[in-house]
Amino acid sequence: MRQLKLSRAFTLMESGPVVLVTTHDGKKSNIMTLSWTMVLDFTPVFAITTGEWNHSYAALRKNRECVIAIPTVDMLDKVVRIGTCSGADTDKFAKFRLTPVPGKVVKAPLIKECLANIECKVVDIVRKHNIVVLEGVAAYVDPARKEKRTVHAVGDGTFIVDGRRLDRRKMMASRLPAGL
Amino acid sequence: MRQLKLSRAFTLMESGPVVLVTTHDGKKSNIMTLSWTMVLDFTPVFAITTGEWNHSYAALRKNRECVIAIPTVDMLDKVVRIGTCSGADTDKFAKFRLTPVPGKVVKAPLIKECLANIECKVVDIVRKHNIVVLEGVAAYVDPARKEKRTVHAVGDGTFIVDGRRLDRRKMMASRLPAGL
Repeated sequence: MRQLKLSRAFTLMESGPVVLVTTHDGKKSNIMTLSWTMVLDFTPVFAITTGEWNHSYAALRKNRECVIAIPTVDMLDKVVRIGTCSGADTDKFAKFRLTPVPGKVVKAPLIKECLANIECKVVDIVRKHNIVVLEGVAAYVDPARKEKRTVHAVGDGTFIVDGRRLDRRKMMASRLPAGL
Repeated sequence: MRQLKLSRAFTLMESGPVVLVTTHDGKKSNIMTLSWTMVLDFTPVFAITTGEWNHSYAALRKNRECVIAIPTVDMLDKVVRIGTCSGADTDKFAKFRLTPVPGKVVKAPLIKECLANIECKVVDIVRKHNIVVLEGVAAYVDPARKEKRTVHAVGDGTFIVDGRRLDRRKMMASRLPAGL
């Protein structure tokens, strides 16, 4: 995995892909599947929706860090299965044959098989709305990976795969952040 | 436009499409382009990131309502242009030849040309993080529309068009909300 400039990390999330979020509770690592995410700032800052109903939430609250890992379409069945079992009784890294890779800043592991990984610190929890606010502190992409298409959950059990990419850079030049 | 069950409205947003958000300040209607959105609950509740830097924010704060309109790929150039000019000096409905349609609950207009529209009430503003929390109160889709592919902003001036749709309903059955 190659390190990515932090100023570009929000571009991994802005399109709204399904992501995997890893945590480490001091003893074990866990993974949850998440579709309810949002960019809050270019720096980057992200919001995710989670709460007591996710086993990972306790570790997130306690250690205040996680990794957002971005899978691609070839991993969809694993992603769905990760989202339909619980870390309470399952070692998801072992069960789904995913490789934890130590990050540089946080104790939650990167996922080697993913297209990209973002190490994050929890900067706030808005409990009223189940929103966890995350600051990205290191980001990585795997340039050797051939499959780069992410998937977007519709919410009804279907998923939309990335299609064509359209370029509107010129038209948007005045609104793009500096340093991209 | 045909009314859509509110219990299905979150499925219009979960994949993370670029959306148009309309507001009405008592005199004029305005439109902003937004990519930083998230589902917060199935009921539906949504979060959007906005603040003083958007002309629409004043109307959103004052009247506490808006419409989330979902455009498709054939509208991309308009969507980008709407996002690169300001309602402070532009009547965007006139300039971009979009048709405002009265909603049933809120004063902000639906956009006739869009694939779907969701009337929303502001339920909270988390000012610390520039998050506006919206409750969907009525939703509509245009079943006659042939182009149904939405677009997803990457954040660097490029946009990903919806590709294939993959069905994992059976695998996800245990986790889908009732009433879908």
